Amino acid sequence: MSSEQAPQSPTAQGLDPKALAYSLSLPHDRRLYRYDIACSLAHIRMLARQGIVPAHEAQAIARALEDIRAEMESGAFPFRDELEDIHLNIEARLYEKVGEAAGHLHTARSRNDLIATDLRLFVMDACRQAAAAVRRLQRAIVDQAEAHLDAVMPGYTHLQRAQPVLLSHHLMAYFWMLERDRGRLLDCRERADELPLGSGALAGVPYPIDREFLARELGFSRISANSVDAVSSRDFVVEFIAAAATCLVHLSRLAEEIVLWAGPEYGFVELPPQFATGSSIMPQKRNPDLAELARAKAARVSGHMAAMLALMKGLPLAYNRDLQEDKVPLFESADALLATLDVFADMLPALRFRRERMEAAAADPFLLATDLADYLVRKGVPFRRAYQAVRELVAYAQAQGRGLRDLSLEEYRRFSPHFAEDALTLDARGAIEARDAPGGTATRRVREAIAMARKLMEEKA
Amino acid sequence: MSSEQAPQSPTAQGLDPKALAYSLSLPHDRRLYRYDIACSLAHIRMLARQGIVPAHEAQAIARALEDIRAEMESGAFPFRDELEDIHLNIEARLYEKVGEAAGHLHTARSRNDLIATDLRLFVMDACRQAAAAVRRLQRAIVDQAEAHLDAVMPGYTHLQRAQPVLLSHHLMAYFWMLERDRGRLLDCRERADELPLGSGALAGVPYPIDREFLARELGFSRISANSVDAVSSRDFVVEFIAAAATCLVHLSRLAEEIVLWAGPEYGFVELPPQFATGSSIMPQKRNPDLAELARAKAARVSGHMAAMLALMKGLPLAYNRDLQEDKVPLFESADALLATLDVFADMLPALRFRRERMEAAAADPFLLATDLADYLVRKGVPFRRAYQAVRELVAYAQAQGRGLRDLSLEEYRRFSPHFAEDALTLDARGAIEARDAPGGTATRRVREAIAMARKLMEEKA
Amino acid sequence: MSSEQAPQSPTAQGLDPKALAYSLSLPHDRRLYRYDIACSLAHIRMLARQGIVPAHEAQAIARALEDIRAEMESGAFPFRDELEDIHLNIEARLYEKVGEAAGHLHTARSRNDLIATDLRLFVMDACRQAAAAVRRLQRAIVDQAEAHLDAVMPGYTHLQRAQPVLLSHHLMAYFWMLERDRGRLLDCRERADELPLGSGALAGVPYPIDREFLARELGFSRISANSVDAVSSRDFVVEFIAAAATCLVHLSRLAEEIVLWAGPEYGFVELPPQFATGSSIMPQKRNPDLAELARAKAARVSGHMAAMLALMKGLPLAYNRDLQEDKVPLFESADALLATLDVFADMLPALRFRRERMEAAAADPFLLATDLADYLVRKGVPFRRAYQAVRELVAYAQAQGRGLRDLSLEEYRRFSPHFAEDALTLDARGAIEARDAPGGTATRRVREAIAMARKLMEEKA
Amino acid sequence: MSSEQAPQSPTAQGLDPKALAYSLSLPHDRRLYRYDIACSLAHIRMLARQGIVPAHEAQAIARALEDIRAEMESGAFPFRDELEDIHLNIEARLYEKVGEAAGHLHTARSRNDLIATDLRLFVMDACRQAAAAVRRLQRAIVDQAEAHLDAVMPGYTHLQRAQPVLLSHHLMAYFWMLERDRGRLLDCRERADELPLGSGALAGVPYPIDREFLARELGFSRISANSVDAVSSRDFVVEFIAAAATCLVHLSRLAEEIVLWAGPEYGFVELPPQFATGSSIMPQKRNPDLAELARAKAARVSGHMAAMLALMKGLPLAYNRDLQEDKVPLFESADALLATLDVFADMLPALRFRRERMEAAAADPFLLATDLADYLVRKGVPFRRAYQAVRELVAYAQAQGRGLRDLSLEEYRRFSPHFAEDALTLDARGAIEARDAPGGTATRRVREAIAMARKLMEEKA
Repeated sequence: MSSEQAPQSPTAQGLDPKALAYSLSLPHDRRLYRYDIACSLAHIRMLARQGIVPAHEAQAIARALEDIRAEMESGAFPFRDELEDIHLNIEARLYEKVGEAAGHLHTARSRNDLIATDLRLFVMDACRQAAAAVRRLQRAIVDQAEAHLDAVMPGYTHLQRAQPVLLSHHLMAYFWMLERDRGRLLDCRERADELPLGSGALAGVPYPIDREFLARELGFSRISANSVDAVSSRDFVVEFIAAAATCLVHLSRLAEEIVLWAGPEYGFVELPPQFATGSSIMPQKRNPDLAELARAKAARVSGHMAAMLALMKGLPLAYNRDLQEDKVPLFESADALLATLDVFADMLPALRFRRERMEAAAADPFLLATDLADYLVRKGVPFRRAYQAVRELVAYAQAQGRGLRDLSLEEYRRFSPHFAEDALTLDARGAIEARDAPGGTATRRVREAIAMARKLMEEKA
Repeated sequence: MSSEQAPQSPTAQGLDPKALAYSLSLPHDRRLYRYDIACSLAHIRMLARQGIVPAHEAQAIARALEDIRAEMESGAFPFRDELEDIHLNIEARLYEKVGEAAGHLHTARSRNDLIATDLRLFVMDACRQAAAAVRRLQRAIVDQAEAHLDAVMPGYTHLQRAQPVLLSHHLMAYFWMLERDRGRLLDCRERADELPLGSGALAGVPYPIDREFLARELGFSRISANSVDAVSSRDFVVEFIAAAATCLVHLSRLAEEIVLWAGPEYGFVELPPQFATGSSIMPQKRNPDLAELARAKAARVSGHMAAMLALMKGLPLAYNRDLQEDKVPLFESADALLATLDVFADMLPALRFRRERMEAAAADPFLLATDLADYLVRKGVPFRRAYQAVRELVAYAQAQGRGLRDLSLEEYRRFSPHFAEDALTLDARGAIEARDAPGGTATRRVREAIAMARKLMEEKA
Repeated sequence: MSSEQAPQSPTAQGLDPKALAYSLSLPHDRRLYRYDIACSLAHIRMLARQGIVPAHEAQAIARALEDIRAEMESGAFPFRDELEDIHLNIEARLYEKVGEAAGHLHTARSRNDLIATDLRLFVMDACRQAAAAVRRLQRAIVDQAEAHLDAVMPGYTHLQRAQPVLLSHHLMAYFWMLERDRGRLLDCRERADELPLGSGALAGVPYPIDREFLARELGFSRISANSVDAVSSRDFVVEFIAAAATCLVHLSRLAEEIVLWAGPEYGFVELPPQFATGSSIMPQKRNPDLAELARAKAARVSGHMAAMLALMKGLPLAYNRDLQEDKVPLFESADALLATLDVFADMLPALRFRRERMEAAAADPFLLATDLADYLVRKGVPFRRAYQAVRELVAYAQAQGRGLRDLSLEEYRRFSPHFAEDALTLDARGAIEARDAPGGTATRRVREAIAMARKLMEEKA
Repeated sequence: MSSEQAPQSPTAQGLDPKALAYSLSLPHDRRLYRYDIACSLAHIRMLARQGIVPAHEAQAIARALEDIRAEMESGAFPFRDELEDIHLNIEARLYEKVGEAAGHLHTARSRNDLIATDLRLFVMDACRQAAAAVRRLQRAIVDQAEAHLDAVMPGYTHLQRAQPVLLSHHLMAYFWMLERDRGRLLDCRERADELPLGSGALAGVPYPIDREFLARELGFSRISANSVDAVSSRDFVVEFIAAAATCLVHLSRLAEEIVLWAGPEYGFVELPPQFATGSSIMPQKRNPDLAELARAKAARVSGHMAAMLALMKGLPLAYNRDLQEDKVPLFESADALLATLDVFADMLPALRFRRERMEAAAADPFLLATDLADYLVRKGVPFRRAYQAVRELVAYAQAQGRGLRDLSLEEYRRFSPHFAEDALTLDARGAIEARDAPGGTATRRVREAIAMARKLMEEKA
C-alpha cells in the first residue's frame, strides 16, 4: 500500500514542531518495545478468538508484529520521531506491512491501557531481576562472612569505637537489610501483577473481549477491577522506586564503609585494581569510585522518588499527560538498582579484608568499658552504678594518657571494690563470645545466622 | 533517696547549654512514652525471670514504672529537658521512686535497642490504625457508589471530557487505590514486626536474656536476627512514610476532584457547611479547605520521604545520632495520614452529588465520538479507518458550531457510508452499558465490583 | 605515532568491564565538549605564555584541539567508551594527532578543576539562555495582557469565584513571578562566575600559571580563592536547579490554569491545533498536553533538586566521585527549563481567550458580596459588622435559590438599614475599577503595570 | 461589650470539630504574632490617616493591639483554638477590648495579604539573622585557620590521601562556601522585601489606602506590583529554604569531617566535653553528636524543600489553602539553619586540632607522587609521560611493601633517567609551598586569603 494511506500520528497531526519535540516520548518508551509488541500480539489473538477481527487479518497482523520485533532487535527498525511514541511507530510500520488491515489493531484498546500494561510488565521484570541480583549479593556477603567468621573488628557507633564485634557479624547486618529489600521488591511485583489491558481510554471497551485470556498470555495473575483506576494509577511505579531507593540507601551505607575502610586511616580493606580507579594526576591513587558512585545513585533515585510523588500529587482522574514523565524516573531507578547490585556482587568477593588491621584496632582496651560495667553487674552492682564507676575509671586513665590495661588492680579498686584480678583479663575475644544471646556477635550465634541465611536463600531462591 | 544520688544524664553531663538544646529529643520522643514504659516493664520482668536482677527489686521497678505511666497519662510527670530524652527522664524518675535499685533497669540493654523497639511499636500501631482508617474511608466510598450507582457523569482525560461513565465507577477507582495502600501498610507492619530489644548498643548483650519472652510480652512475632542491623536500620520508617505518602497522593487526587467539582464551573458536588470554610472578607465563599489541605499534606509527607532517604544515605553502621531526626518525619507522616483518612471518611458521606449537573455535562454528544467509531467497526470498518472518519465528522460539526446530534444522517454519510439511522440514537447511557467487559463502567459491572469490594472488606476486616 | 604509545585511560586501566560500564561518564559529559576544548585551548596558550610548555608544541596542540572540536561538531569524532569521559577521549585523540607532545596538555591541571570549570561555563550559559527565554515569555504575557486589557473574569481563591478581576491583571501576576525567577537565574550566574581552573586536583599547582589570563580567555570575571573549595563545591549546580525548579513551578501554575480553562466547564480559552493533541481513540479530543507536560517537568526538576542536596550531603572534602552524578540532574533541569519556557512563549500568543465566557462567569452577582460589605463600610458600618450583614444576606438569597440581583431593596434592608438604591447597581466592572490602589485590578493600574513592565524589560534586556 | 457581640470565627463557623482540628493553623502561626500585630498597627494608623476609619477609634484599636502584644509576650493571652489562626485570635480579643470598633480593623485588607506580609517579614528577619550567624561562624573559621596557619595535613580526594595541604587552607574552603551561602540569603532577603499588604483577598481593595506608608512603617523597601501575585506566591519561602538547605549541606560536609577526624583512626581533632556526648551504656564514649545532628538537619531541610516545591506545583491562582502548609517547612528550616550555625560557631573555636597526628599522616611519601611527576616535567618530560613513569615507580614500591623514601636513586632511574638526587628530597612542606598560584595551598597564599577574608567581613559586616 502507499504510505499516504498509513495514518499520520492520529494525535500529533498539525502540532507545532517545538511542541512535538517537547511532547515526544519515543526516546524513552522505545525501550518498552518488547512489552508493547507482546501486548499487541496477545491483543490481536484475543480479538480474533472473540470474532472481533477476522482471523486471517489477525494472523497477518501477528506475523507483521513479529517481523517488527525482529527489526527492532536487529536495529533495523526505522523509528520516526514525528510519530511521537513507540505505539504509533509500531502501528505505522504495521500499515506499511499489512496495509489497511493494520487499522484493526487498535480496536478495543487505547494507548492509555496499553502503556499501563507495558509499564507493569517492565516493573514486574525489574522486580524479578532485582530480587535475583539481591540474592547474588547476599550470597557474596554470606561467603565473605563465613570466610572471616572469627575476624575481630571494632564495632562503631557515631563512628567512634564502641565494642568489639566479629567482621562476619557486621557483614551479616547487610544480609538482613537486603532480605527486607528483596521482600519489598517482591511485594511490589505482586501488587503490580494485574492486567490493565481492556480498560480502554478510561471507561472500558464496548467489545466482547476476553481479559482473562490476555492476562494468561502476558503472564499476569489477575485483571484490574476498575478501568478508571487501571489507566490513572502509577502507585506501582512509586512503590518500585521506593523499594529501589531504600535498597540503594542500604548499599550506600555499605559503600560508605568501603570508602572509609579502604582509606589509609582505617586500612581495613584493600580494593583490588579491577575495582579501584586511578587519578588523572596523582599516580599513587587507588580510589573507591564504585562505592562513591553507589552512594550517588542512592541520592539520584531518592530524587526520582520525590519527582514521582510530586508528579502524581493532585492529578484528577483519569489519564493525564503528566504520566508520560514517569518513564525516566522509573527506568533510571531500575538501571541504577540493578547495576549497583551487580557491581557490588562482583566487587564484594574481591575485597581483601586486612584482619590484622582490624584486630589491632579492636584491641583498643577502652572498647571493653561496657564489659567492665557488666563485670560489676555480675558482682551485684546495679548497672547504672557500675556504669558510673567505669566512667570514672576511664576518665582517670584518659586524663593520664594511659590505657585500661596500664592500670593496676589497686587503681581499679579505687572506683569499685568489686573489681578483682579477673577484671584485668577481659579482652575483645571474650567480650565477643559473651554476647551470645540470639542476634548477638558471639561466634556460635554468627555461625547459626549464616546457616539460617543459607537455608533461607535455598528455600526462597 | 536524695535526688543527687540519681545520676545526671549519663550522656549530656557538662554539655554546653546551646549544644544540649540542639540535641534535645524530649519534645518529640516523649510521645513514645507508652511504648517506652511497656518495653521497660517487659525488660525488667525478663531480667527477674532470668535471675539477672533480684525479683523484689524488679517488682519495685515495675510498680514504679506503672506509677510513672500514670503520671504521664495524667500530665503530672515532671519532664526535665536537661535529661535529653524520654528514656533518661523515666530512668531519673525511677531513681526518685525506688532509689539505687533503679540502676538495674538499664542492665542488658541500651538506648539504641530501646528506641528501635519503641519506634517499631509506633509504626506497627500506626499501620494498624491507618489500615482501619482506610477501611472506614473505603466503606464511605462504596456507600456513595452504591447510592449513586446509575448516576452518569463525563469521564475525563487531560481534564477534557472523554467518555461517559458512571459516577459510581469513577468513585470505585479510589476504592482500589486505597486497597493497595492498605496492602502496603500491612506489608510494612509485617516487616516491622521484629523485636530489636536485646541487641544492646550494637553487639548484643553479655547476659542470659530471653528475647522470645520480650517479643511475646510486647506483641512482636519474631526477634531480630542481627544486633548491628537491629540498632542501625530504619527502613521500616522509610517504608511507612513511603506507604503514607503514596496513600496521601491518592487522597490528593480525590481532593483535587472535590476542589474542581465544588467550584461553580463544574458544580458536580456541594460541600455541606460543616466541611466548608468561609473567607475573612468574602461573605459568599464556601471553600473546600479540607481538600486543599489534604493536597498539601501529600506534599509535606513527600518531603518527609525525601528527608528520610537523605538522612539514611551513606551512614556507616551502627547507630549514629542522625537517626534521632527520624522522629518528626515519622510522627508528622503518621499524623497527616491518619487525620486525612479520618476527615475524608467523615466528609465523603456528607458530599451532595448534583446528578443533574453531571448528567447535563455527560450529555455533551462529542463524548460519543469513540462510540461512533466503534459503531463503524461493528459494521466492518477497521478501527483506525473508523476513527479517522469520525474525526473528520467531528471537525465538520465543530467548524459549524454544531453538535453531533444536529447533523443529519446524510451529513454523517459524507464521512462513511456505513452510518445508518441507529448511529443517531447513540447516547451516554448506551455508551456506558456497552462497556461491560470486566472492569468496565456498565452498570452490572459496577454492581459486581461493589459486591466484590464489600466481600473483600468483610473477609479482610 | 603508534596508538599503543597513547596512554590508556590513566585511571580506568585494568578495571573490571562491569565496573567500567558503571563508572562511565562519557554518555553524559560528552555534551560538555565545547567547554572542555575551550578550557584546553586557554590552558595550553597560558602554559606557552608562561614558558611552561614549548611554544611550538603548544601551537600544535591548539591546532589539534581545534580539529578535534570540528570532528565533534561534525559527528566524526571516534568516541571510545573505555576512555571513561570526555576529557580522556580528547587527550587520547590528541595523542593520535600530535604524538608525545599531547602529554603536555595535562600539565598544571587535573580533571577535578577541569570539570568544575566546564560545569560552571555550562551553568553560566544556561542561566543566560534561560533569562532570555524568560524575557520572551514575559513579552508574550504582556502582549496578551495588553490585548485583553479590559476583559473581565472571575478571580478565584480556593478555585471558588471570589471577586471580579481583569484577565490582564491575572496574566500580569505571572510576569512578576517570572521577573523574580529571572533575578534568581542571574544571581546564580553571577555567583557561578568564578574560574576554578588552576586549582589542580585540590591543592593548587606547582607551576607559575596565570589564572587571570585563563579567566579572561574563558569569560570569567574572577578566579576562585581556594583550590579545595573550587574542586569540591557544587552549590552553583544546586542553586541553578533551585532556580529552575522554582520557575518551572510557576509555569506549572500557569499550566494548571491552561488545563482548567481549556476544559469545557470553564471554556475560558481555546487551544489552537498546533498546541493541542488528540487521542488515539477519542476522535473529538483536543488535549492540553503541553501544559500537562510542563506540570510534570516541574515535578521532575523538583526531584533533581532533592537528588542534588542528598548527593552533596555529608561529603567530606575535596573531590569525591559522587560528584559525577551531578550531570544528569543539571542537564535535565536546564533542558526542561529552556524547553518549557520556549514552548510557552510560542503557545501563549496562540491562545484564544473567550472573553464572553469569562465575562458571563464574572457576572455571577455573588462575586460582589465583598463590595456590598465595602459599600456598608462607606456608610459608616465597621467592616466586620458589614461583612456579617452581607453574609446573612447572601445566605438568605442562597437558601431561596435566588441571586443577589433578584432581591428587593426592602429585602436588603432587612440585613442593614444602610442599604440604599445604589447598592443594587453594583457590578463587576465597577468592582474592578474601585480597586485602584497601586497593585490593584483597576484598569488604569493594570495599564500602568503593563507600561512599567515594558520599561523594565527594555532597561534590563 | 458582651462577648457574644464578638464575631465567631467568620470562617470556621459550624465546622465539624475534626475538620476544625484538621485545618487549625494557630499552633504554628501564633509564632508570627509580632509581625501580625505590627501589620495591624501600621494598617490602622494608615486607615486613620487616610480618613477611612475615625481617628479616635483607630487610636483605641492601636492601644488595644499594643495591650494584646504585651499579653502575648507575657504568656497571658487567652488563645482559642476554635478561632483557627493568629489573625482571628487577635481580632476576637480586640472585640473584647474595644467592642464594636474592632470591626474596623479588617477594613481594606484580608487574611490573604496579611499572612503574606507576616511571612515576608519573618523571612526577611530570618535572612538577616542567618547572615549574621554565618559571619560569626566564618570568623571562627578564619580564627582557627590563622591559629593553625602552617599545620600540615593530608588533602583527600575520594577519602584517599592525595596531596599535602595546610589545615588552614582546608578550613578556609568552608569560609568561601559560607560566603556564597550568605550571598544567597541576602539575595533572598532583597527579593522578599516587597509589601503585599493592600492586595486584599486577591484583587486589591476599594479604599484610598496608602501602601507606601505601610511599607515605610513595616520596613519594606517597595510595594508589590500585582495583587494576585502578592497573595498567591511563595517563591520567597522556596528561595529561603533552598538557601538554608544549601548552607546546611555545606555544614553537613564540615560535620562529616568532624565526625571522621574525631574518630580514633584519624584522630585529627579532639572534641571538648561540652561539645561531645556520652553513651548510655558505653562509659568511654565521646560522641560527635552535634555534628551528626547537623548532618541530619541538612537532610530534614532538603525534605522541606521537596515539600514546598510539591506543595506549590500546579496550584491555580490566587490563594489556596494549601499555602497554609508552608509554615512548618519554613519555620523548621529557619530554626535548623540558625541553631546549626550557632552551635557550630561555638563548637569550632573549641575544637583541639592534633597537629602531630595530621602531620604524621601527611608524611606518607606517596602523597608526593604528583610532585615527583611535576619534578620530571620541570626536567622537560611531558606531563603524561612523567605521570606514567611515577605511576610505575609507585607500583614498584608498593609491590615490595616499601615507601618512596626507601628506594635508591638508582631504582628511581629505572623509571626515568631524569631523576637526580634532589628528587629524593621532596617533602610535604615543599610540596605545599610549591603550590603558590592564587588559590593554592602555599603558606603565603593562605595568609593572603585570610587577610582577604577579614577585609571582606569588615566591609560587609
